[in-house]
Amino acid sequence: MPHIQFQNDLPGILGPMNFSPHTAEPMNALANALLQTDEGLSRGERELIATYVSSQNDCFFCQTIHGAVASEYLGDDDWSLVKAVKCDYEQTALSDKMKALLAIAGSVQKGGKHVTTEQVEAAKVQGATDREIHDTVLIAAAFCMFNRYVDGLATIAPQNPEVYRARAARVVEKGYSSEGKYTSEKIIS
Amino acid sequence: MPHIQFQNDLPGILGPMNFSPHTAEPMNALANALLQTDEGLSRGERELIATYVSSQNDCFFCQTIHGAVASEYLGDDDWSLVKAVKCDYEQTALSDKMKALLAIAGSVQKGGKHVTTEQVEAAKVQGATDREIHDTVLIAAAFCMFNRYVDGLATIAPQNPEVYRARAARVVEKGYSSEGKYTSEKIIS
Repeated sequence: MPHIQFQNDLPGILGPMNFSPHTAEPMNALANALLQTDEGLSRGERELIATYVSSQNDCFFCQTIHGAVASEYLGDDDWSLVKAVKCDYEQTALSDKMKALLAIAGSVQKGGKHVTTEQVEAAKVQGATDREIHDTVLIAAAFCMFNRYVDGLATIAPQNPEVYRARAARVVEKGYSSEGKYTSEKIIS
Repeated sequence: MPHIQFQNDLPGILGPMNFSPHTAEPMNALANALLQTDEGLSRGERELIATYVSSQNDCFFCQTIHGAVASEYLGDDDWSLVKAVKCDYEQTALSDKMKALLAIAGSVQKGGKHVTTEQVEAAKVQGATDREIHDTVLIAAAFCMFNRYVDGLATIAPQNPEVYRARAARVVEKGYSSEGKYTSEKIIS
């Protein structure tokens, strides 16, 4: 049960976002700016970073919805790649550049000062640009916020994977900043 | 030295924000929505929560600038209250409600699931509203992002307290969302 009364029964982050639309608006704008672009990192790669950090933060709702969105972009229909990335990304077929960026994201999850010069240099050696390193750090940092918002208020999370698949398809189509999503999708878990 | 080339030598979060204005815009809008209001929690109380979390995350730039802003609002000219809050808020003259909210903020800093029903109930007993608990959780969560953005990219932080006092006065006057601040205040530390 959520720690406070959201005055709605929307799942995950939608509960507090609907409770507080004036803070939800810039949070969605940030998610959109960070995740809904293929400049440098692709949308699928961005969602993988978000999923991995959410998994490290043990946030069920965020790792499941962003894993579902990543799978949509990457054609990972059975979610096998996303699951493997969460389990041990070093053993996946991801590029060495993505593995180096996920190492940076993992350090950001622990705390900003955990990122080392060696990790950043390793990413640059694999071809990562300053923009890609910046975006990796900020995606990881932002999900340390989103995850804490979701779990710090003890929001409810549906268990049915189809709920996340349906929502992921909508995110791919409309992004994170469409207003309607807060009022039109009452999902029963 | 920062991990990437910001193409500017602005201090703290201003470096990466100027490097990436399209993500800075929603981040500043969020800071403004969370910190530049006296609805429920006062601006000074909001900045104290931000300062405490930044201190727990060991982020020098954020704890110093937000501590300076809190001191401006609270008339804490010698920063003694802010320093005491960072050291041991239980021993300060803060209200029992604020102490209960800082306990929640401290748990959010560790991770969303660290917030307990007992902590939330204790805050409610002291008169905290759902809105105040929501805002406390989101301020704490947001500073887990801002702090990681600042330190995950190894930004530079001025050591001179006067730099922070001057900037705090500007924040009190104009808030966090004025555009000009990213280009007009080249501060040498």
